[in-house]
Amino acid sequence: MVAEYIDAADREARRRALSVFRERFKEIYKQIKMGENPFLMLPKRTLSNTIYDEKRKLLLLGPEKLKRSFFDLHESKKFMQTLLMARIIYEALERDEYPTIRDLYYRGKHTILYRDPSTGRRYEENTWDEQRESDAVIRDIEVFTGLLREEMLILSKEKGKVVGNMRIRSGNDIIDLSRMGHGAYAIEPTPDLIEFIDVDAEFVLVVEKDAVFQQLHRIGFWRKHKAILITSAGQPDRATRRFLRRLNEELKLPVYILTDADPYGWYIYSVFRIGSITLSYESERLATPEARFIGVSMTDIFGDKKTGKKPYLTEQERRNYIIKAKDADIKRAYELMNYRWFQTEKWKREIEIFLDKKSKLEIEALTSKGLRFLADKYLPEKIETGDWIS
Amino acid sequence: MVAEYIDAADREARRRALSVFRERFKEIYKQIKMGENPFLMLPKRTLSNTIYDEKRKLLLLGPEKLKRSFFDLHESKKFMQTLLMARIIYEALERDEYPTIRDLYYRGKHTILYRDPSTGRRYEENTWDEQRESDAVIRDIEVFTGLLREEMLILSKEKGKVVGNMRIRSGNDIIDLSRMGHGAYAIEPTPDLIEFIDVDAEFVLVVEKDAVFQQLHRIGFWRKHKAILITSAGQPDRATRRFLRRLNEELKLPVYILTDADPYGWYIYSVFRIGSITLSYESERLATPEARFIGVSMTDIFGDKKTGKKPYLTEQERRNYIIKAKDADIKRAYELMNYRWFQTEKWKREIEIFLDKKSKLEIEALTSKGLRFLADKYLPEKIETGDWIS
Repeated sequence: MVAEYIDAADREARRRALSVFRERFKEIYKQIKMGENPFLMLPKRTLSNTIYDEKRKLLLLGPEKLKRSFFDLHESKKFMQTLLMARIIYEALERDEYPTIRDLYYRGKHTILYRDPSTGRRYEENTWDEQRESDAVIRDIEVFTGLLREEMLILSKEKGKVVGNMRIRSGNDIIDLSRMGHGAYAIEPTPDLIEFIDVDAEFVLVVEKDAVFQQLHRIGFWRKHKAILITSAGQPDRATRRFLRRLNEELKLPVYILTDADPYGWYIYSVFRIGSITLSYESERLATPEARFIGVSMTDIFGDKKTGKKPYLTEQERRNYIIKAKDADIKRAYELMNYRWFQTEKWKREIEIFLDKKSKLEIEALTSKGLRFLADKYLPEKIETGDWIS
Repeated sequence: MVAEYIDAADREARRRALSVFRERFKEIYKQIKMGENPFLMLPKRTLSNTIYDEKRKLLLLGPEKLKRSFFDLHESKKFMQTLLMARIIYEALERDEYPTIRDLYYRGKHTILYRDPSTGRRYEENTWDEQRESDAVIRDIEVFTGLLREEMLILSKEKGKVVGNMRIRSGNDIIDLSRMGHGAYAIEPTPDLIEFIDVDAEFVLVVEKDAVFQQLHRIGFWRKHKAILITSAGQPDRATRRFLRRLNEELKLPVYILTDADPYGWYIYSVFRIGSITLSYESERLATPEARFIGVSMTDIFGDKKTGKKPYLTEQERRNYIIKAKDADIKRAYELMNYRWFQTEKWKREIEIFLDKKSKLEIEALTSKGLRFLADKYLPEKIETGDWIS
């Protein structure tokens, strides 16, 4: 690769990751040299070893460890897979390469031929057969090294977009996120390498739906309200989550999440705020525990007799625009009830109303009140009056 | 809306669309004023009225028309839906609004109450119940006015991204697509409003997969090879298709499409090149008939005894990385065989090999030959030797 294409941020990230790899895998090298049975001690990535930290409001891996040993019949294949993957990643780091997780699967996929020394019989064994296996090994390496795969310069597909009064440095470029025309800036796969240069914004608004993002962008919502406007285009990917966390943590910007009024929308909020339960080791870096759910909430639709809150929709509008909840929605609502971070008064009330009315609503249904209602009334009013859930 | 947010391109687009609307719907107004039965004459959007133009290599709507009349029991609801939607779009254009197609569905969805004058009985009728209905009406308005919905400032979700040595004007901003850092420029929903300012590129490479795009971007492929690099992130949306067509038509840049080696990848190529059969009226503006399929082709995998072409993969690599075709793949291959634009020698050979081997391959499998094989050998060599299919 021609040197000019390499940027300083990438070079520094590679240097750091290579150094962590050498440090962490040194032990194995020593063990083998000493003629010992080589093994790795890994944090257990199991549900039982996943702890909700009440104070930091984060899902974290607990203290349980797993011993992955070469001379253990049950662990030996996994042990070898882990070292194979570590080698491939190490080499890619050294060679200025940018693999994707799918590349790593293919890069390492091959058949090992061996002969049983006692019987002389030949055997064949695949390193891995499915990406599920190689992905699991990458996760093991993440928890073992304490590096997210992004820090190993492993790339992935990204959907997140951003616009707002903000300038960033990415690679060798300075990008003005307020000068994107009608388009937007597609967030990079390695958001930790972004440098925030200056920002003139008061909050971050994350919109679940790309089309709603397009609309708010085009009418200048972020300019008028001094917002950084982001879309996750559905379920958020890791880069969008990390980017959001950094805006909140480093720039101290409050974060509002706007989704459809349904348990799927709540789940998207939950992923932004807490992370996925099965991938809790990421959440320490990717989650934004202070993220606020701005709506659309059940009390926005139905009001709340208990608090006296008036609904945004009339009886007639509810009749026209509400969608009947599906069984999958109701099932998900019951699941969410069990999450600790949904056991606040306001969330309990949301779920209660949902299960009572068995109804959901799309963001776009608010346009029945006028195409500018969302931007000019609903969002500013809810932010101003603090009508959000956390 | 504050005037400064409105840009000249949008204002001009609105002015133009409003003028077309007034011109096209004037007839209806006259008919009603004269006490005549009002009607609309629409091009028929049916398969039987879809023609493949061999010369222009485009799917086009034929000459058949449909009469949609107010006093025709079968057509009266559709007639009213069409006028309701036309009114909503017209108002949105006048009010500087940017609806999405989902907004338009909600904006127009309501229940009409009426009384049968003879019996005195009351009836209820919904304007439409599902978005399918309102979307069909938008399409009718597109063919009736000759305006794409993007020209009516109707927005939608977009997935397409671009980087390259090129500057564009969008809205009030000039955007340098070579200065996007590790991120990319997310293409706007109204690509006809983009102005190409300057370009220093020799071809356009469209990558089906976002993760492969990220990788080629990060290693500077577009810089080294003077390319405009685009990803459609799967099945292309309208904006990406229109943007690509404009690059090809206005800037005379050759266009190469890179997909997985399977009938789904061929279909993505087909959508870029010809468009969807059921939405042929779009294709005149969105399709790029000169788009070339660069691979991964079946002859790249297996070689071709007939032409003496050598495969890129060894027997061993094929054994490791090939995926068995599913029934759905085979079914799609047979469908594609019927398309006129797949009835060339090279395409027939591709489909023949696929049906013989019943095998497919992902782009990422090429990384088994090294993580830089795709960028440094495969793509440059295929472009240089003209080893693509059109």
